[in-house]
Amino acid sequence: MKRIESPQNSLVKHWKKLLSVRKERDKTGEFIIEGYHLVEEAIKQKEQVLTIMLSDTSEIPANWDVDNLEIVEINDVIQKELAETEHTQGIFAHCKQQTVEEQVQTKWKRLLLIDAVQDPGNIGTMIRTADAAGIDAVILGKGSADAYNPKTLRSAQGSHFHIPIVKGDLHEWIVALKNRQVTVFGTAFENSTPFHQVEKSDSFALIVGNEGSGIHKEILEKTDQNIIVPLLGQAESLNVAVATGILLYGLAL
Amino acid sequence: MKRIESPQNSLVKHWKKLLSVRKERDKTGEFIIEGYHLVEEAIKQKEQVLTIMLSDTSEIPANWDVDNLEIVEINDVIQKELAETEHTQGIFAHCKQQTVEEQVQTKWKRLLLIDAVQDPGNIGTMIRTADAAGIDAVILGKGSADAYNPKTLRSAQGSHFHIPIVKGDLHEWIVALKNRQVTVFGTAFENSTPFHQVEKSDSFALIVGNEGSGIHKEILEKTDQNIIVPLLGQAESLNVAVATGILLYGLAL
Repeated sequence: MKRIESPQNSLVKHWKKLLSVRKERDKTGEFIIEGYHLVEEAIKQKEQVLTIMLSDTSEIPANWDVDNLEIVEINDVIQKELAETEHTQGIFAHCKQQTVEEQVQTKWKRLLLIDAVQDPGNIGTMIRTADAAGIDAVILGKGSADAYNPKTLRSAQGSHFHIPIVKGDLHEWIVALKNRQVTVFGTAFENSTPFHQVEKSDSFALIVGNEGSGIHKEILEKTDQNIIVPLLGQAESLNVAVATGILLYGLAL
Repeated sequence: MKRIESPQNSLVKHWKKLLSVRKERDKTGEFIIEGYHLVEEAIKQKEQVLTIMLSDTSEIPANWDVDNLEIVEINDVIQKELAETEHTQGIFAHCKQQTVEEQVQTKWKRLLLIDAVQDPGNIGTMIRTADAAGIDAVILGKGSADAYNPKTLRSAQGSHFHIPIVKGDLHEWIVALKNRQVTVFGTAFENSTPFHQVEKSDSFALIVGNEGSGIHKEILEKTDQNIIVPLLGQAESLNVAVATGILLYGLAL
């Protein structure tokens, strides 16, 4: 097994850059994950895994299939440099972002479109929720936090390896979806229908927006219908990931 | 207006202790909030506000009713000591926790019971969600994060001043609720019914549990029925605050 001892090793430097610099992730299409749960989900999609990094105190569980995967041993110093959490489990993976052919994309019937949601934890929770609700794909519009930010990856709990995540222009997506009879729902406080009064459809796209300002007006104008989670108490709004969960399940079930 | 210049002032020391030490909050029944939105919600419940603390660069908005409220000016040094957020708005309030008479508690018909949820942010989001869903009260069982932790207060976005939050023994609460015909729903993966197939009831209590281990077995055995958010994709679970939102709205609407 290959072993790296020096934090000055060029690969270690590359991993650290992938953890902290979004541009580096965008340019290379690579990212780093941490912890047994995420790495276990990753190796079920082997073609996305470049390397597994293992500290001296950690082990690959016997039931994992790691055939043909490169495993590199790292020492304590390097482990600390890579660890995002205080109590790291000492296992990491260097992965490739998934790519999805256009031909596949045009078959998606249930989608979540995200417009400028800024908190990485919210994005991660929304990806996890879309996965749970059986959604076909998540489309990240401009101004959203990076799906491969370490915080996003952690809060998505492995759903990055279950559901396609695509960056795209939401205007173009809305046009394309409407062209193939997918009902496009925006979310808005004004001129909107409570979600549980909406006619159910087998194919739908839900757009959710920024934590403070909601969905961009130009996008909202292009939807088929705008819906809302009714506020029955005194709260002025819901957390965007919670609202996304209520709406996706309301539309999906 | 009273002004405090020294971080060694005994009141400043008390505020700092309320921010960082749960025991101090429990003992005194007091807590500290930060930012315009939270302080604005607090002053609508004037009897809970002891003092508003205002930095040199901040102002009380003209439309706020602060009659009879004590306002104390603080300098930059003290502001930094109290601030939990990087970009503080320089306004804080020292508040009293609400108390609710038992006579009122026995009238609650829609409740959220929380069993050992450990993340303060999750607890706050759940309080906010319960408020939005028109729930009458939140009952915090043993082992849960403190409702008055600064992180909990921040993620609840002011709902602490909208909805009663009571610490209690969940076993006792379940017995009392069942005695007055409030249907008690647990949440569990096994032997549970998908939430959307449950018979609706005007009065219900929903119990949600720990992020990793769920609800304690002894509590789960006491419920009327156990329900679940069905997992339609590959995700193994939902974030507890998201699941709470889906279930509360599923039961409430």
